[in-house]
Amino acid sequence: MTGAPAFDIASLHAFYALGGTPDTIIGRVFARLAEVNDPGIFLHISDREALLAEVEALGPFDAEAKPLWGIPFAVKDNIDVAGMPTTAACPDYSYVAAVDATVVRLLKQAGALVIGKTNLDQFATGLVGVRSPYPIPRNAIDANLVPGGSSSGSAVATAQGIVSFALGTDTAGSGRIPAGLNNIVGLKPSVGALSTAGVIPACRTLDCVSIFALTVDDAWRVFDTTARYDAADAYSKDIPASGYGSLPPVLSIGVPAKADRRFFGDATMEASYENALAMLTMLGHRVVEVPFGDFYKVANLLYEGAWVAERYAAVKPFFDANEASFHPVTRKIYGGAKALSAADAFNGLYALQALKQTVQLLIDAVDVFCVPTAPSHYTLADLAAEPIRENSRLGTYTNFVNLLDMCGIAVPTGKRADGLPASVTLLAPSGRDGLAASLAREIHQAAGVSLGATSWSLPPAFPKPARIDEDGMIDLVVVGAHLSGMQLNVQLRDLYAVFSRQAQTSDAYRLYALAGQVPAKPGMIRVEAGRGGRIDVEVWRLTPAAFGQFVAAIPSPLGIGSISLSDGTVAKGFLVEPAGITGATDITSYGGWRNYVAADTDRRARSAG
Amino acid sequence: MTGAPAFDIASLHAFYALGGTPDTIIGRVFARLAEVNDPGIFLHISDREALLAEVEALGPFDAEAKPLWGIPFAVKDNIDVAGMPTTAACPDYSYVAAVDATVVRLLKQAGALVIGKTNLDQFATGLVGVRSPYPIPRNAIDANLVPGGSSSGSAVATAQGIVSFALGTDTAGSGRIPAGLNNIVGLKPSVGALSTAGVIPACRTLDCVSIFALTVDDAWRVFDTTARYDAADAYSKDIPASGYGSLPPVLSIGVPAKADRRFFGDATMEASYENALAMLTMLGHRVVEVPFGDFYKVANLLYEGAWVAERYAAVKPFFDANEASFHPVTRKIYGGAKALSAADAFNGLYALQALKQTVQLLIDAVDVFCVPTAPSHYTLADLAAEPIRENSRLGTYTNFVNLLDMCGIAVPTGKRADGLPASVTLLAPSGRDGLAASLAREIHQAAGVSLGATSWSLPPAFPKPARIDEDGMIDLVVVGAHLSGMQLNVQLRDLYAVFSRQAQTSDAYRLYALAGQVPAKPGMIRVEAGRGGRIDVEVWRLTPAAFGQFVAAIPSPLGIGSISLSDGTVAKGFLVEPAGITGATDITSYGGWRNYVAADTDRRARSAG
Repeated sequence: MTGAPAFDIASLHAFYALGGTPDTIIGRVFARLAEVNDPGIFLHISDREALLAEVEALGPFDAEAKPLWGIPFAVKDNIDVAGMPTTAACPDYSYVAAVDATVVRLLKQAGALVIGKTNLDQFATGLVGVRSPYPIPRNAIDANLVPGGSSSGSAVATAQGIVSFALGTDTAGSGRIPAGLNNIVGLKPSVGALSTAGVIPACRTLDCVSIFALTVDDAWRVFDTTARYDAADAYSKDIPASGYGSLPPVLSIGVPAKADRRFFGDATMEASYENALAMLTMLGHRVVEVPFGDFYKVANLLYEGAWVAERYAAVKPFFDANEASFHPVTRKIYGGAKALSAADAFNGLYALQALKQTVQLLIDAVDVFCVPTAPSHYTLADLAAEPIRENSRLGTYTNFVNLLDMCGIAVPTGKRADGLPASVTLLAPSGRDGLAASLAREIHQAAGVSLGATSWSLPPAFPKPARIDEDGMIDLVVVGAHLSGMQLNVQLRDLYAVFSRQAQTSDAYRLYALAGQVPAKPGMIRVEAGRGGRIDVEVWRLTPAAFGQFVAAIPSPLGIGSISLSDGTVAKGFLVEPAGITGATDITSYGGWRNYVAADTDRRARSAG
Repeated sequence: MTGAPAFDIASLHAFYALGGTPDTIIGRVFARLAEVNDPGIFLHISDREALLAEVEALGPFDAEAKPLWGIPFAVKDNIDVAGMPTTAACPDYSYVAAVDATVVRLLKQAGALVIGKTNLDQFATGLVGVRSPYPIPRNAIDANLVPGGSSSGSAVATAQGIVSFALGTDTAGSGRIPAGLNNIVGLKPSVGALSTAGVIPACRTLDCVSIFALTVDDAWRVFDTTARYDAADAYSKDIPASGYGSLPPVLSIGVPAKADRRFFGDATMEASYENALAMLTMLGHRVVEVPFGDFYKVANLLYEGAWVAERYAAVKPFFDANEASFHPVTRKIYGGAKALSAADAFNGLYALQALKQTVQLLIDAVDVFCVPTAPSHYTLADLAAEPIRENSRLGTYTNFVNLLDMCGIAVPTGKRADGLPASVTLLAPSGRDGLAASLAREIHQAAGVSLGATSWSLPPAFPKPARIDEDGMIDLVVVGAHLSGMQLNVQLRDLYAVFSRQAQTSDAYRLYALAGQVPAKPGMIRVEAGRGGRIDVEVWRLTPAAFGQFVAAIPSPLGIGSISLSDGTVAKGFLVEPAGITGATDITSYGGWRNYVAADTDRRARSAG
């Protein structure tokens, strides 16, 4: 790989910014394809000349206008790309797509380049990656192992450094399992966040388009580009790409209670999971054991219950007429759905609803969950011997997620003792994709592992979030006891406020230590510009509802007004009524509450000593 | 009915407060039963001695502790009352309930008295009230007409003044149609607001317990008593009984476009509906025509689609073993579900989801919908001739409501030209029961009709909402351009703020007309008590999210702090930064922004003249 940049987006864009050309990168893509020499990864590969023409049409490099300018990616072959065949790994089902799936269109508009269509467990049914009539993609780390599925080709293409990222789909875990087994990141968005228009359904009520990438930043950039409400998808939701960046200092992280963990005898995987939890503790988070029995009951509904009928319903006329065209395992699963009645389907929905009611209490009790991505690695020989059982075991920690309307992201945590990839998946309620991704990023950095099967390492962390999104969150400037580490900061964290940044006010504010407040609090008041000082503040971000609750609870004489910051921006923040500074001490000269409190503590200590 | 009070709750509680006894009222219940002499209403009647013993156990009259103290009510016979048979109008299915349904338990705890169990369309399947093996309840207004169903007995018992209120159930309209046909109020709560634990399911994903009452206030009091999250019901939701009382001055009310209205030739019903819309306009609201084709498509799904399978699933073992025990029409409907596959069920869900996506735009465009409750009255002879078709027509404006997760309330609008009852139903999104009920109350008062089939008239309106609920809403004190009728008031209404009350501040505020503001705005600032004046303000109520959005949008130099009101309470409200009153005019002496604006307008007019 000498002479060419790593394929993470930051490295490629740095390469382009310094005058490198997409021709070179496309050359690397095809060279890498040849080096890897795995005929199972791609079912269709883009024409090289056509790719170069696409690059021409992009215009000059501009990462602002086109955040994925010149970035090569792969598309799972149950997602339409205009002019290419869509097979779903079922040759008799194949058709040439007339238009791009919505997500593909958005990615092309952002400047990304489709390298080809990737192999999968037929009709995206499976977690193993071997249920395809085409050659099986080889696990990028160890060719004896299953690659994981159903998005096998997309995961392997990314892990091998052939593309920067790839689209998968995820109904039962297909966007997470192959990420975990190939040492890459797998972002499974909230159900409905990415449009499924132009995607062959598995279970329409649960299907998600998912994202494989080398880094969490890259996965997030793709998510940020594609999370759009789409009227062409009846299950589309308006889920903003928000909350990615800084994390609150302490998260409460739910993990399966020890007795409920399932590794099916793989002590090495168990040890790697325990290491990951130790890492979370070292990062300052609080790990909370949670009973997991009801999650497993939800998981069982997916293949034992009515949802198999969704898979059958998606291709019913084709299946009824062409059973022999199906992979034997897939045929067996789909055929089983024919006997299910409408009453069975509703009984499945009722069973899920009853479980949701109890599981919701556990979900509400923590910020995020951390589970093993897969309970074990399986060899191709294991799978040949037990094609259903091992597949089912792989789904231990993934099958329940979409049924519970959660988002998730699989992230490498380093190497197991035997050198195979270790991975955890972070799970959060719908809409909290940013929180899960932010924690995944922290973990990936701490793990310090190379990317996929390549020798590339994780680029250094950016000092600030690359971009604060226009996400409907409200900035709140805090000045005193709500600063991080101070007594009332917990009120912000209880409302899931997200720390945004340190800041200073413009020089038009005076700060007072108020009289008679418990805990001690300052009050800030605006004066003429230049007649005050710049005051150190923090900016936190809240949802409108959280912001509303927070403001409603503020006691007199404090209130919320508009604060001018030294960078010229204005945000909502704490002010004090002028009537409230009676008896207060002017502490403007300290430049902030934290300085004043430190000096005050110091003074007391000295006077006591 | 001489010598006894009307049976609305206010009248009964006034009777008790003046020393009247429940014995007298129970006596009236049994006397009224004998007068009405309709053997079709009740399938089981409480023992009179047992009722008197229950009254003893209530203790002395206390409407604060027991808001339904001594109020007689009836229970539809698909809802369990401990110690009484539950038949669902299917004698072979009958069992004696061991425990009360959750709603019944809550009503008993609130002091209400179960008079008996009422007849229904068997298994709550039907909108006609004639699909029962028992004698058919007679329509309370005209015995030739169908009573409406499926909650026929509950509606007729209320309309005849035998009870103050009655519980029904509503899946397709069973809580609204019989209310409309018997000149009473039918409150169909948001799906999940009232527990269905202890209720025989029809469609578990859609079933609601509903409330029949003589007045909207009474229906709301029952709702307020029973809307509780219940862990025993997997579909239970925590929907607060909030927002009942004052309305914003102008609501945007969606109605079916003229071309989409369906009265099946009943010009009298059509005229009565147009009168009701004229009444809404006279009340100051804005009537907006909306295309209704997609609502009808949703409605069709209920009986033509997969949801019939829910009815079958609810009683499958009994139905499979006892088909002959079913009413012929019910048997035919349930039997039709046996052939539906799980794929059919999911295809039904997909069809609904696709329609929801387009209909949601229409729902979002208005505050509330007003539809005819039923398109026509049908005679018993009509029904005998066309048992399915007329039933289906009755559901024109009701069948889609629960599928779209809306709440509704049917309310009398007066008499049609032929003297038969006219009724509209107000529909709103889930959780906005209070808004729909508030408008229903306004309509009922304007209609000035007597209650049910009795000669009782609607008690006079209370001057204020009987009770502002502890509902998580936030009070906001507005001072200037956000006052009702002023230029920025629309910002509050856009956020579904609810007008609460006129108020005055304590005498610690000074009001300024700010310089250079467009539109003109005042600023209020707190000074020492007695150094300012009392300022006229309005209190509006917002959800936390709405409040948060509102506060976030307030421009400098205005902000939100704590305002002391003259009644000693404190609420969030507008304040101005002291730096903002540079160049402002002190207008405290006007006592409020409205006075100042009027005087200012007057002064300008005079100087122009």
